Amino acid sequence: MAHFIKRLNQAIREKRAPVVVGLDPRVDQLPPQLMNFKASAHSHHADLAAAAYERFCFRIIDVVAPLVPAVKPQAAFFEELGPSGSQVLASVMRRAREAGLMVICDAKRGDIGSTAEAYARGYLAGADHNRTPWAADALTVNPYLGPDTLQPFVETAQDREAGIYVLVRTSNPGAAGFQDLVAEGRPHYRHVAAAVEQLARDTAGEESFGAVGAVVGATYPQELADLREAMPHTHFLVPGYGSQGGTAKDIAAAFNDEGLGAIVNSSRGIIFAYNRAPYKEQFGPDSWEAAVEAATRDMIADLAQHTPAGRLGQP
Amino acid sequence: MAHFIKRLNQAIREKRAPVVVGLDPRVDQLPPQLMNFKASAHSHHADLAAAAYERFCFRIIDVVAPLVPAVKPQAAFFEELGPSGSQVLASVMRRAREAGLMVICDAKRGDIGSTAEAYARGYLAGADHNRTPWAADALTVNPYLGPDTLQPFVETAQDREAGIYVLVRTSNPGAAGFQDLVAEGRPHYRHVAAAVEQLARDTAGEESFGAVGAVVGATYPQELADLREAMPHTHFLVPGYGSQGGTAKDIAAAFNDEGLGAIVNSSRGIIFAYNRAPYKEQFGPDSWEAAVEAATRDMIADLAQHTPAGRLGQP
Repeated sequence: MAHFIKRLNQAIREKRAPVVVGLDPRVDQLPPQLMNFKASAHSHHADLAAAAYERFCFRIIDVVAPLVPAVKPQAAFFEELGPSGSQVLASVMRRAREAGLMVICDAKRGDIGSTAEAYARGYLAGADHNRTPWAADALTVNPYLGPDTLQPFVETAQDREAGIYVLVRTSNPGAAGFQDLVAEGRPHYRHVAAAVEQLARDTAGEESFGAVGAVVGATYPQELADLREAMPHTHFLVPGYGSQGGTAKDIAAAFNDEGLGAIVNSSRGIIFAYNRAPYKEQFGPDSWEAAVEAATRDMIADLAQHTPAGRLGQP
Repeated sequence: MAHFIKRLNQAIREKRAPVVVGLDPRVDQLPPQLMNFKASAHSHHADLAAAAYERFCFRIIDVVAPLVPAVKPQAAFFEELGPSGSQVLASVMRRAREAGLMVICDAKRGDIGSTAEAYARGYLAGADHNRTPWAADALTVNPYLGPDTLQPFVETAQDREAGIYVLVRTSNPGAAGFQDLVAEGRPHYRHVAAAVEQLARDTAGEESFGAVGAVVGATYPQELADLREAMPHTHFLVPGYGSQGGTAKDIAAAFNDEGLGAIVNSSRGIIFAYNRAPYKEQFGPDSWEAAVEAATRDMIADLAQHTPAGRLGQP
């Protein structure tokens, strides 16, 4: 089992890039030429925005598919548009799979019993991306409801060679509010981490990593390093690089000596590079796709220079 | 502010029923005559199931609109079908609003910063159900990511006279796994409860209850009673009645002396009453709508008899 991480690590080695590009489209930041519907009637706004999101994400997929192993659509920005956004989320996931990318759907789902089963069945296509409408290889999952609520996701992940990333230590400024409350001598998130590591170990079989991973923010380097040590069988999805302030050095401890063990996300810093330093001056809106490529290549080089990921692909 | 709870309490008083009917459609439990697509091609299965869910939910809305103040669609079962399910979720929410019902969308969303804003903007229509594609009066929200991640939902709720219910103590068997870890002398969920009560107090204004409520399961009566005492400004959404084992007596402590303070959910026990005891013998599939009505009336009577909700509407 654990084929999701096996497939992902293979793709990471091939691309020599432990990088996932976050697909977080936003109406107010899209290149203006994709937004040629300003004058349209209000009632069609969501449909037109959804069409623009599709064009935008399809182009990003084309640009990054040769460079990185995976993309991570953020469900919220699609759902904000209503059903037409949901339709585009599905088509973007499918397009990414057809382009050879793996898809981590960042929907942070979580519910009890048969409800969790419904989310798992709906999102986790796993190895066969035609199996479900939402063609995810992996899904982010929220653990608040309890360890029993992770089980339906784990079972579906195993059945379908898919994976899940459970929220452990998130990257937001207030993450400590509930996650760092100390119970039985260790912070709350370390209890979640222990349950996740157990699931990872149980699903690892002969592989180094299990089908159950963890979301661990780049913005808390010490916690990231401690968790790497405490969770040897758990693959990490690391948000918070770039726009949120996390650096390659902050993330270095997430990797093992081979340069494996984590995949680092960047969303705004890549997809909206055209309107951000240092790319804004050189590129601008008309060459936004070139800015995406430059930002992606720079991130890969940054991680290769400052983390063990530089050893990927070496003999 | 806090107009969501003001509107909800008005509806609860009018109907004399602190009851929300959960809309949790499932292909394998729908009355067979709604599922006349067994022979169809596999590729259209999801679309046909979605159409059946729409017919099923529309009929339930017609039956329960005179009896209860609100419905609670469970997003997972719609999303499981892909974009066609999402389309039906939106149409069911709109239809419920048009029928005069309030809508609590049970999607358990939660994310950081601008991502949380996108969920809030997308789902919380509030008083004007034409404002967003997902026409919810209120949304369930997961607190794991931290207190700061609740803020975007609170702000949008206030702007739109909408509300949120934050997961505090859930109804599943493993709820204690993470929620009961004791930090600083009290269980984890009591820390979440304190933050939620603060937000409820801050948004209450002149009203008894704020715009921020809490999900507290009927399956843990002692915790429910303790939380009622600790959270005087917080309205409770109570799952776990009926099929999950919670009884009216278990829930009694959720209400104040006026019979206000909570709304109790039943999903399977109402919508699939036709194939469950004690309704199965009398009704059966052909009279499934009559079974929905009977189960709803019985639940209202049960709560009136065994909880302070019996005082609703009395002079």
